[in-house]
Amino acid sequence: MGAGSISSSKRSGGKVKVPPKLLSFLRKENRFFIATHINPEGDAIGSSVALSMALESLGKETVLYDKDIIPEFYRFLPGHEKFTHSIPSFVNHQWPLILLDCNSLERAGIEGGMTFKYSAVIDHHETEKDFGDIKWIIPEAAATGLMVFNLIKKLGITITREMATNLYAAISIDTGTFRYNNTFAEVLWAGAELIEAGANPSYIATSLYETWTRERFALFIMALNTLERRGDVAIIVVTRNMYKQTGASSEDTEYFSNYPRMMKDIKVSAFFREIDDDYWKVSLRSKGDFNVAKIALMFEGGGHKNAAGYEIRSNLETAKESLLNALALCQPSPGDK
Amino acid sequence: MGAGSISSSKRSGGKVKVPPKLLSFLRKENRFFIATHINPEGDAIGSSVALSMALESLGKETVLYDKDIIPEFYRFLPGHEKFTHSIPSFVNHQWPLILLDCNSLERAGIEGGMTFKYSAVIDHHETEKDFGDIKWIIPEAAATGLMVFNLIKKLGITITREMATNLYAAISIDTGTFRYNNTFAEVLWAGAELIEAGANPSYIATSLYETWTRERFALFIMALNTLERRGDVAIIVVTRNMYKQTGASSEDTEYFSNYPRMMKDIKVSAFFREIDDDYWKVSLRSKGDFNVAKIALMFEGGGHKNAAGYEIRSNLETAKESLLNALALCQPSPGDK
Repeated sequence: MGAGSISSSKRSGGKVKVPPKLLSFLRKENRFFIATHINPEGDAIGSSVALSMALESLGKETVLYDKDIIPEFYRFLPGHEKFTHSIPSFVNHQWPLILLDCNSLERAGIEGGMTFKYSAVIDHHETEKDFGDIKWIIPEAAATGLMVFNLIKKLGITITREMATNLYAAISIDTGTFRYNNTFAEVLWAGAELIEAGANPSYIATSLYETWTRERFALFIMALNTLERRGDVAIIVVTRNMYKQTGASSEDTEYFSNYPRMMKDIKVSAFFREIDDDYWKVSLRSKGDFNVAKIALMFEGGGHKNAAGYEIRSNLETAKESLLNALALCQPSPGDK
Repeated sequence: MGAGSISSSKRSGGKVKVPPKLLSFLRKENRFFIATHINPEGDAIGSSVALSMALESLGKETVLYDKDIIPEFYRFLPGHEKFTHSIPSFVNHQWPLILLDCNSLERAGIEGGMTFKYSAVIDHHETEKDFGDIKWIIPEAAATGLMVFNLIKKLGITITREMATNLYAAISIDTGTFRYNNTFAEVLWAGAELIEAGANPSYIATSLYETWTRERFALFIMALNTLERRGDVAIIVVTRNMYKQTGASSEDTEYFSNYPRMMKDIKVSAFFREIDDDYWKVSLRSKGDFNVAKIALMFEGGGHKNAAGYEIRSNLETAKESLLNALALCQPSPGDK
């Protein structure tokens, strides 16, 4: 890796300091049950696989668990096939647990009151949960993958090409490949080191962003053709009939809601996806300080400030109008950005 | 910047070595006519503005020239307003010239047999031109902005926030914000240093990718509706009539050529933009090892391996067929990736 000459404090910005207790735990134990959250995305998958590989390179045994299957478009990640989707019977209360990219057993789909010998949580989500003998939770970290990168280095493990690919993809997903406002210098330092360790940025970006099927792209164009602008709100729609016309399916609509945000005078992008007769899933994306999680809550949904969603049972026109009414109520005050 | 502890060979990968002759030239002269190519994009603009600022910080005089105006969506770059679009009368044959991101007077729109005291070319485009007393041309450099970054450091100039923003944007544009296969470790090292110097990655990404006008977005949808697939080639078209229908203009078509590449089985995306009756500008984008610069050269155009272009005088159907014939001739051999 040739990283020796660069001080780690410069590279990691001093933010991602690995707790000594976590290092002792990982060094001491010889087997680990590693679990991450349901509906796993790139950061969950990449950081878990990389940590599993790193610990196995030390001769330790790991079991990688995700309750849900790995989405097709993340299967380019080497080692994703190590995930099991049911907890093997030999994993019992004598096993230590590592929870990655989440901080509760529920979120990891571990049910039935299962207990563990000892547990470490490695996460960058803010939380009110109180789980874990060791809680290494850094909300300022751009990705759990960035934390695992620092952890693996601290353990003195050489980062292989496979680990690098997983960690680079993890960091890519959670920073929009270095476009979101969590792209600190430390993120690019880590990215550069991972490239030196063998990660291939264009292969990873192509795998993440340029592997749409022709059916998906056809659906995308059809969705864009429904674009409707209402002030600073953009609305696009996908109906079940469009799946029939294009051969695409509902999972192909991932990311569609982001595109109308490309327009500079659009503050909120709303994507209506037909689930059933008079039954819609609504995905909201916003820019800056406009909090769409608040809007989603009004319809008993949820999410984050800039990405949230809910479901609504009504016809499309009523669903649109109710959203526009809610948005009108929640306009940020003029002082907000 | 705090970069002192990191060896430059590690950061720049040893590729971007600044010629001593260029450094002496820049140190010796007290005024410079800095020109870049017609139809300027982010790398041309950002690297020129940053170099101008850097030289002026040494007390030197610079004139920044681009024959064409700066597109609206690059006007977030601090200092873009320093560009003049006609050559001031006081600039004469006694001025030294710096050509950036291009390597011929024609490409820079400098006409009428104008001569200069001395000339330096700083470029990363492959070329057969033989212009310049100093020719610093590094096709392997991801961006001219990366070369200028190294040059400014070598001159011992502190990179200001304004320079950093220009250089970060320049590098972003030519690497697809760290997604193309020219994203070497050195590119991320530079990016990290520029963040430390004040560049704001999310502000720059939002400015580059999320400030489309509604007219531009309407044109984008209209262009996508022309999508035609011919094997692993995707073709989209914008006619002059579409500008009338949407209120958008030719500069709004920037990046359109990238989108069809999102489809996994598309190797080459071709974007035909009508310039005049039976006169088309063709932008080619490719994935992986497919070299579209070769194709563009067959039509007397140019560019890079994955992004190139040319102009053709014919009707649209003939233009499409001639491209498809050229592509069929140049298919990579089966051993290529």
